Amino acid sequence: MQKELQFYKEQRRKILAFRYVDFLTGWDMQTDAATGSIAADSVYQSALNEISYRLSTDPEFERCVETLYKQREALDDVLRHEIEVTRKSVADAKKIPMDEYVAFGELTSRAYPVYVQAKQTSDFELFRPYLEKIVEYCRKRTVWLATDALKGYDVLLDMFEPHYTQEKYDAFFNVLRERLVPFVKQKTAVPAPVPDWAKQKFDVSKQRQFCEYIRDVMCFDKNFGIMKESEHPFTSGMGTDDVRITTHYYENDLVSSIFSVIHETGHATYERQCDPALNLTFCGGGASLGMHESQSRFYENIIGRSRAFWQFHYPVLQKTFAPQLDGVTLDDFMSYVNRVEASFVRTEADELTYPLHIMLRYEIEQKLIDGSLQVKDLPAYWNAKFTEYFGITPPNDAVGVLQDVHWAYGEMGYFPTYALGSAISAQLYHAMSKDFDVEKSLSSGTTGQINQWLGEHVHKYGASKYPDEILRIATGEDFDPDYYVEYLIKKYSNAPRS
Amino acid sequence: MQKELQFYKEQRRKILAFRYVDFLTGWDMQTDAATGSIAADSVYQSALNEISYRLSTDPEFERCVETLYKQREALDDVLRHEIEVTRKSVADAKKIPMDEYVAFGELTSRAYPVYVQAKQTSDFELFRPYLEKIVEYCRKRTVWLATDALKGYDVLLDMFEPHYTQEKYDAFFNVLRERLVPFVKQKTAVPAPVPDWAKQKFDVSKQRQFCEYIRDVMCFDKNFGIMKESEHPFTSGMGTDDVRITTHYYENDLVSSIFSVIHETGHATYERQCDPALNLTFCGGGASLGMHESQSRFYENIIGRSRAFWQFHYPVLQKTFAPQLDGVTLDDFMSYVNRVEASFVRTEADELTYPLHIMLRYEIEQKLIDGSLQVKDLPAYWNAKFTEYFGITPPNDAVGVLQDVHWAYGEMGYFPTYALGSAISAQLYHAMSKDFDVEKSLSSGTTGQINQWLGEHVHKYGASKYPDEILRIATGEDFDPDYYVEYLIKKYSNAPRS
Repeated sequence: MQKELQFYKEQRRKILAFRYVDFLTGWDMQTDAATGSIAADSVYQSALNEISYRLSTDPEFERCVETLYKQREALDDVLRHEIEVTRKSVADAKKIPMDEYVAFGELTSRAYPVYVQAKQTSDFELFRPYLEKIVEYCRKRTVWLATDALKGYDVLLDMFEPHYTQEKYDAFFNVLRERLVPFVKQKTAVPAPVPDWAKQKFDVSKQRQFCEYIRDVMCFDKNFGIMKESEHPFTSGMGTDDVRITTHYYENDLVSSIFSVIHETGHATYERQCDPALNLTFCGGGASLGMHESQSRFYENIIGRSRAFWQFHYPVLQKTFAPQLDGVTLDDFMSYVNRVEASFVRTEADELTYPLHIMLRYEIEQKLIDGSLQVKDLPAYWNAKFTEYFGITPPNDAVGVLQDVHWAYGEMGYFPTYALGSAISAQLYHAMSKDFDVEKSLSSGTTGQINQWLGEHVHKYGASKYPDEILRIATGEDFDPDYYVEYLIKKYSNAPRS
Repeated sequence: MQKELQFYKEQRRKILAFRYVDFLTGWDMQTDAATGSIAADSVYQSALNEISYRLSTDPEFERCVETLYKQREALDDVLRHEIEVTRKSVADAKKIPMDEYVAFGELTSRAYPVYVQAKQTSDFELFRPYLEKIVEYCRKRTVWLATDALKGYDVLLDMFEPHYTQEKYDAFFNVLRERLVPFVKQKTAVPAPVPDWAKQKFDVSKQRQFCEYIRDVMCFDKNFGIMKESEHPFTSGMGTDDVRITTHYYENDLVSSIFSVIHETGHATYERQCDPALNLTFCGGGASLGMHESQSRFYENIIGRSRAFWQFHYPVLQKTFAPQLDGVTLDDFMSYVNRVEASFVRTEADELTYPLHIMLRYEIEQKLIDGSLQVKDLPAYWNAKFTEYFGITPPNDAVGVLQDVHWAYGEMGYFPTYALGSAISAQLYHAMSKDFDVEKSLSSGTTGQINQWLGEHVHKYGASKYPDEILRIATGEDFDPDYYVEYLIKKYSNAPRS
């Protein structure tokens, strides 16, 4: 067994090295690389994907994992979990033909710059051939990876959130549909215009300065990560010691970059607070996308849009932009950042209408995968369904079907984890509030006590347990969407002044 | 033979993919990665180095290269050259024990951030243990790679500039010593103080704007590369379609960033103008470091410090910084950028004293490798030798022995290529001037015609021939340092006004 373990760890180190390469190439593609370079570099990336695929599906490695799996009772909890998960991922990887795997990597590398251009020019037809190939691959994936328990879209959902199937998501979205949709309709019936003060231009270098301040408020350690700019904000990293976030500054939007930074720093805090002993294992980083999103949304919405947070930090914002915000009170600002309205773009949507954006994508992905919706019909379908849910019609595809990058990356089955994450964040908030006064802790000027609680109850486990297990440990309960609905209804029943 | 060629090309593609990884990790380390992250990431890099080492020394690959080498007369010129060079590099790689190779990669990854800190705090002792290990490895390398023809320091020199040994460099430096050193002594005897106008603060964002203008003047295509900032300016890339440069802006120095950009764009132009058919072969990129440096220095000094260049672009500089340069004439500016004085820092040295900085490093490296100088004695030796050559003593190690990053990267034998490159640039200038009026071509507002000549006579060959071969093709002559000495004496005999 010692020899098996040694071989396993040696192979794991190499596989992780290729994850590091993936992280770095992705980071480069989204931050530095010039458009023409991305296409050129995809040749190297596909060679690397091929080598990495061979490593992960090496028959020696598979045999070794199988041997360890049979003796798993002798392993410690973390390694046992890792072996279980790795056994499944090796089996899954082997079910995908290598040439298809490599070609898909190259396809998405090439799709990304085309997607960016299509979005910039609102030209769906430019991106359509790529998206058709991506959907076709995702459908094939559901066939290759099908098991007795998982078929069709469930196969894709499970890749991003283990143990969450259409059955569970349907139940969750049904609760939202029944309890939240009527409430949202009522709240969006009254227009909430953007106040004049928020229509000013806000100097980007001042935005940058304030975002650096917020990063420090959230205790992000600059020695082990950086904050940069990209088209679409994201968090990325490798282990606990290299955690990177990006944001995007808009001169005509004061708060977009701020909430992006709070959101991404939420992700980053999760990565940073994982037990460092899990570095160089497959159990580092977050437990799942849903769990990850629960952290980013917890910080962004529950903390970042709370009065307790801004009571302390709004004066700093005012000072940074002085005299632009001199006549704008904390009340005005809170109303603005908690405005509710039907809007086109998911990433800019308010907390209350947000899950409806996800429901739309969830239903569309179901149809794309089961074949009842074709890519060519997607823009029309998107706009019709959007109008049905929100009562407004996207004026172009850039703010409609082309707004999100996920499909260009080949990620289908990912979106539902966003809504799930929001719901989990409310359940965690409920549990945290039993242990200490969350709002009061913010008067210290940092999120330190909150970070500590989440570190202890969620972050430290990394991916060494399944996300539903961690939720049970942290809250003592199974997933319960009622906490989310109750949180939202309570918060938004006191209609923010506009 | 077809089968052998197919295997060769397949393996080459993978080896190149790891060069892409090297390029990207290096780029990241020097531009984005946080200090703490660099150490953490070195674990992955060493795993990748190991995989890459195994690929390059794969016995199947070695056998295949040997087979192709035996049939090399049947190959086209480029492939024949490639097989010859690859056969040597595989043989060399196999002579280095894998554990030593991997450990050295990890050592230099860890040494870099320590070096940066040591330089920042001018604390040689901090960096000393790393440098001792690096020198020890370089000495071992000279033993592993020794042949009948190459021994000791020659082994290292050949790695950076094939066909250039101590015998040739000694002859070159002797010409400089005899003809240039007395001239330099005479020119530096009279102090050349920095004029008051140059002691102002120059807004960094305006510097950035002007450097972007200069990048365009040099026809650098933004679709296939980027310009970023780093501590030490450098050029990096992969193939003709991903070429990146960096610069460093100093508020108290107007021209440092400008000449860095001209220099690095010179390197970049070389890479960009290589025959694209050489992409995805081992013959892409520059022929050698000396040849590369000949291009960067050609643009930086011969073009970038010429009156013909600034006649056109100085008014733009004045306008960018208006009204700061309103009273400063073109004559004043030309005198300033061609000032000659004894100074401490190589990268900031003027064109005339520059080769003396290289001679110093060349002599020190010879002694470190033959064991007659110990790392612990290096700062004192550096300062003594520096005083002898320049008549001034470095006030601290940051502007003395710690000023250059090369040794931290493990690069010994690299420095002499800088002086060689300067000399080659003068020889190329002489040849180019026979074909067209170089100065006159600058009145078009770009370096287009110069780029074209260099593309046709030097760049297109990439590394498909040895550098001395390319020089012969481009100039019709072997390397001749007299062109360099004559160029310098002619230019600086008309003492710039100060």
